[in-house]
Amino acid sequence: VKRVLVTGATGFVGRHSLRQLVDRSYEVHAAVRQPPALGFPAGITWYTADLLEPRIASALIEAIRPSHLLHFAWYTEHGKFLEAPVNIDWVEATLRLTRAFATAGGTRAVLAGSCAEYDLAHGFCSDALTPLRPASLYGTSKLAVHTVLAGAADRLGFSHAWGRVFFLYGPHEHPARLVSSVIRSLLLGEPAACSHGGQFRDFLHTEDVAAAFVHLLNSDVQGPINIASGVPVSIRSLVTKLAGMVGRPDLLRLGAVPVSPDEPPMIVADVRRLEKEVGWQPQWSLESGLQATLEWWQQELFAGGSTEKLA
Amino acid sequence: VKRVLVTGATGFVGRHSLRQLVDRSYEVHAAVRQPPALGFPAGITWYTADLLEPRIASALIEAIRPSHLLHFAWYTEHGKFLEAPVNIDWVEATLRLTRAFATAGGTRAVLAGSCAEYDLAHGFCSDALTPLRPASLYGTSKLAVHTVLAGAADRLGFSHAWGRVFFLYGPHEHPARLVSSVIRSLLLGEPAACSHGGQFRDFLHTEDVAAAFVHLLNSDVQGPINIASGVPVSIRSLVTKLAGMVGRPDLLRLGAVPVSPDEPPMIVADVRRLEKEVGWQPQWSLESGLQATLEWWQQELFAGGSTEKLA
Repeated sequence: VKRVLVTGATGFVGRHSLRQLVDRSYEVHAAVRQPPALGFPAGITWYTADLLEPRIASALIEAIRPSHLLHFAWYTEHGKFLEAPVNIDWVEATLRLTRAFATAGGTRAVLAGSCAEYDLAHGFCSDALTPLRPASLYGTSKLAVHTVLAGAADRLGFSHAWGRVFFLYGPHEHPARLVSSVIRSLLLGEPAACSHGGQFRDFLHTEDVAAAFVHLLNSDVQGPINIASGVPVSIRSLVTKLAGMVGRPDLLRLGAVPVSPDEPPMIVADVRRLEKEVGWQPQWSLESGLQATLEWWQQELFAGGSTEKLA
Repeated sequence: VKRVLVTGATGFVGRHSLRQLVDRSYEVHAAVRQPPALGFPAGITWYTADLLEPRIASALIEAIRPSHLLHFAWYTEHGKFLEAPVNIDWVEATLRLTRAFATAGGTRAVLAGSCAEYDLAHGFCSDALTPLRPASLYGTSKLAVHTVLAGAADRLGFSHAWGRVFFLYGPHEHPARLVSSVIRSLLLGEPAACSHGGQFRDFLHTEDVAAAFVHLLNSDVQGPINIASGVPVSIRSLVTKLAGMVGRPDLLRLGAVPVSPDEPPMIVADVRRLEKEVGWQPQWSLESGLQATLEWWQQELFAGGSTEKLA
């Protein structure tokens, strides 16, 4: 039996991994800080656990004895996560968790890294080639975990992959983040202030992000793997699409928000490892994914909240 | 008086620089291997000169004594230019030309480099950051000239810039190159065999390329400058646009041509120096540029050749 422990299981990405794991016959154990609301698939064993508490990880691993680990949990509070000191606590917590997993005989782990580990001035981020030089404590902390795992993988004794996530969007996103905030402004009839929008970014629907992680967990591919679309999309074209869908292009304020001279003109992933070695490609087109996100916000704002089932 | 010598003046890019130089009150002297056909602007002094002949450069410079130099001439034969030994002759010819220009008191030179100088595995090519590691003799030879000019600029005594060109399209392109060959196939009702088309490239209309070079010549910006759009466009979307314009999407054969595993998934320029320091942006949109190129080929194939005047 494949028994997986998922951390951050109700988070923006983790929540979408559960059904897919159940469908692939994993026995799913989910760790969360707070018990989940309705809408999660049946057949999951839930644990309320704060992984930052030093003794929790080993107790949890002892209780479950998972063969597989899918680690999404981290501090991700919008506007704060990049420089919050708690990033360093998450380095410790993640290392404790993986060591306990190894000690209990775990065989395969996949952990969530970030494009913030790269020197983003390089723009096109290759998992094989691009220098790693984080500009934030968040990126530094993710890179620190990866460095330990990559260096100690043989001694830890389990197979592992490190999925570097790029730009996400989808239902349940923090309302202040780009896609959500533009959709909310447009739906509420308020001006949507944006930058000039000439920057290119790599967007992936959170359901696809989760699917890629589950696919990766199910493979034996090791090391760093970009989890992304590989498709450069300008912020201008993204918000213009949204405004077109809502029918309110008049509300877009391109150029209203200044852009830092340091802001990278391009952050796009090389996805050749993901496509060729992992054998995975996105299911959502950008258009259909944005449309679904828009419909979720319409429900959220005007119909008393979401009633969707997690797919 | 600003007196400019333009080499490669009837070439794919050079031909578009002449009118713009005349309009900016340059006294224009144009060197070509063969006397030009009709259709070039008046007020230009033409010279038939083979710059690969060792004594020609100094004789030409002595006769003209230009204050400015715009050097486009190089070996560019489609299918052969990347590895042809004559690339090395062009290194010598270019160095001879620039030394003669310096000796005769020239003050400002702009020369055509290439994105082929970069390590293209990096995908996003920054004139400040991306390693230079050519994969071809063409790129190596261009880089060799740049290296000498950059290292010896003070001793040569003139101000210079090195414009790195990316992917070009427009009228007068070799019929076997991407845009021209797809347009020709579509117009002739023949299948247009393409690769999967997932690669992103940076395309600029040759008129814009020439305009950027003239703008750069007229500035005092020094060193390497990418001459490009900064916009990643997939080959798939490019050829799909063309098929839509011709109304023959049925003729596209995406995936019919295999792609080498070494082929870079992205080759796109960082254009911040061009936009901010040189202060130049493209005039042609991709759509209007492709449409104009298509119309030129319709004229060429079905109406006995072009009658256009060079703008």
